[in-house]
Amino acid sequence: MPVPTIEWKNRKVRIVDQTLLPGKLKFIYCSDVKALWRAIKILQVRGAPAIGIAAAMGVVLGVQDSKAKNFSSFKRDLNKVIKYLATSRPTAVNLFWGLERMRRKAYKNKRLSITRLKKALLSEALDILKEDKVRCRRMGAYGARLVRKGDRILTHCNAGGLATADYGTALGVLFRAHKEGKRIKVYADETRPLLQGARLTAWELKNAGIDVTLLCDDMAASLMNTRGVDKVIVGADRIAANGDAANKIGTYSLAVLARYHRIPFYVVAPSSTFDFDLRSGKEIPIEERGSEEVTQFAGVRTAPKGVKTYCPAFDVTPAELITAIITEEGIFRKPFTKTLKKLKKVVSC
Amino acid sequence: MPVPTIEWKNRKVRIVDQTLLPGKLKFIYCSDVKALWRAIKILQVRGAPAIGIAAAMGVVLGVQDSKAKNFSSFKRDLNKVIKYLATSRPTAVNLFWGLERMRRKAYKNKRLSITRLKKALLSEALDILKEDKVRCRRMGAYGARLVRKGDRILTHCNAGGLATADYGTALGVLFRAHKEGKRIKVYADETRPLLQGARLTAWELKNAGIDVTLLCDDMAASLMNTRGVDKVIVGADRIAANGDAANKIGTYSLAVLARYHRIPFYVVAPSSTFDFDLRSGKEIPIEERGSEEVTQFAGVRTAPKGVKTYCPAFDVTPAELITAIITEEGIFRKPFTKTLKKLKKVVSC
Repeated sequence: MPVPTIEWKNRKVRIVDQTLLPGKLKFIYCSDVKALWRAIKILQVRGAPAIGIAAAMGVVLGVQDSKAKNFSSFKRDLNKVIKYLATSRPTAVNLFWGLERMRRKAYKNKRLSITRLKKALLSEALDILKEDKVRCRRMGAYGARLVRKGDRILTHCNAGGLATADYGTALGVLFRAHKEGKRIKVYADETRPLLQGARLTAWELKNAGIDVTLLCDDMAASLMNTRGVDKVIVGADRIAANGDAANKIGTYSLAVLARYHRIPFYVVAPSSTFDFDLRSGKEIPIEERGSEEVTQFAGVRTAPKGVKTYCPAFDVTPAELITAIITEEGIFRKPFTKTLKKLKKVVSC
Repeated sequence: MPVPTIEWKNRKVRIVDQTLLPGKLKFIYCSDVKALWRAIKILQVRGAPAIGIAAAMGVVLGVQDSKAKNFSSFKRDLNKVIKYLATSRPTAVNLFWGLERMRRKAYKNKRLSITRLKKALLSEALDILKEDKVRCRRMGAYGARLVRKGDRILTHCNAGGLATADYGTALGVLFRAHKEGKRIKVYADETRPLLQGARLTAWELKNAGIDVTLLCDDMAASLMNTRGVDKVIVGADRIAANGDAANKIGTYSLAVLARYHRIPFYVVAPSSTFDFDLRSGKEIPIEERGSEEVTQFAGVRTAPKGVKTYCPAFDVTPAELITAIITEEGIFRKPFTKTLKKLKKVVSC
């Protein structure tokens, strides 16, 4: 059973505080939109699909105490909440996608009473959560088709249950392949600076009984060259219309290393991660986080005071380096500009 | 002024405890060979050239209280000490080179009284230290010829003053280029697992007034692609006759990334780092260190208990990915198998 990363409980959003894992599995409750905004900001909840769900639930939190009597003033409250939540993190498009779905839902139901409208919004947020579960299972099933018995698979960051409402995107593929008895061997990059690979991915895979080995990010090339890696499988935070994919910093590095070692490189992401408005990855905004993520660790300073840092939270892997993109609608291959048009059509229906 | 990494003081070896930097600059004194062995093992002293010096001084420590009355029993003591020191770390060949020089010195002077022989060995160890200073300056001068004004240079681990008796190998080139007014901009990989880049390189460069920016290892590809890097310059722990170079884990990764981004990749190392007995890097023994280096940080566990790890301390960069090797005897280019023969000739004279 995947861990219940995010749920709606008694007018509150219950999330697993991912900053405390793997040491402690603790649930926290966000009862207002500010608490939820902060939970997204400081990565208590993270992972593109989970952020999309959190954003939708955040809208419910933000408007549930609205005193608006008519749609026009409710709309003002709603848009304020949406605008606020949109400032939490810039890269994962699922955040904006979730917010947009909530806005559309409200606009479509503007004739309802405010009480009913609030209920409709909660129901939409819960739908987003439910749909994410279905998407994870479908991505897992499609992706597992590509996995062969005994495959040695390298992944980066955490694209698992903790990044979604179910068992993950990239890790969903691994969970499914494992369930199918494919006896995979997984290598997890620790993923500096925040170590989502060490803290979350190794924890999830180990709990599921999958053979997992942890390594530092700078060991991946050596691993490919000495032990051998059959596939690299990662998630994504935003994918442009041409297939360029933003994901956790270090993903692009792996893609280049995979190309050099002739290892197929797969991206697994639901349709909510695609941003068809962007022609290429160059247009994806990349979050730069605090310098202390690089200069400190667990409260311990590791670098001299005042040293300058470079610390983007994401990088963009050009489509050219991606073998295929696995979505809940199937597996997409190059030329992405052409094939992804079909995905766009399906999801905009 | 470079920091006095290793010195001989009153029958003791004084070293900077590099595990405490950059928080604390503390000198420790090794008065016997066991303490020195441990200092090498736990990386209180590290960096291939510094390890070579430490090994030589370790021999002096190990035999200074020898009660041998004749060469034959002194030789037994000596060889025991050498054998013991050789077990401290396997990859940097300078260790074995330093030990071998000491052995040769003793054998050549076997007619001396034991007291005089001990003095001769101390003098040899001090010569190794002095020569290292000269080598650093010569490598710096040769290497700086390749650096252009305003170059953005990426380095990995620490190949600086702390890795040598003077101002370093790779960093020696940067110090020299800086002194020549070339206004370089240096990027330092933090270098997991032991963060020599964050702790030592950033500290050394900052102290010298060089513009230095720290990044996590998995950010290097993004750096090359977005900000741009003009050169990658690193040290080495052992170089085979064909130019394959072992260096801190992550170096090979950078070499692959540099190739993809068409960035020249330079290795800077003194002749003592070459192992002409090895035809290729495949024969270089690679140290695997404790799993806790990957699963913990500063005493804090970052990964689930019992997770498997992959943690080689070094990797081998194939000659094919190296633009040039800078030594105290000049700059060597491909085909290394041919050009390095000249180096072998010079140093074996």
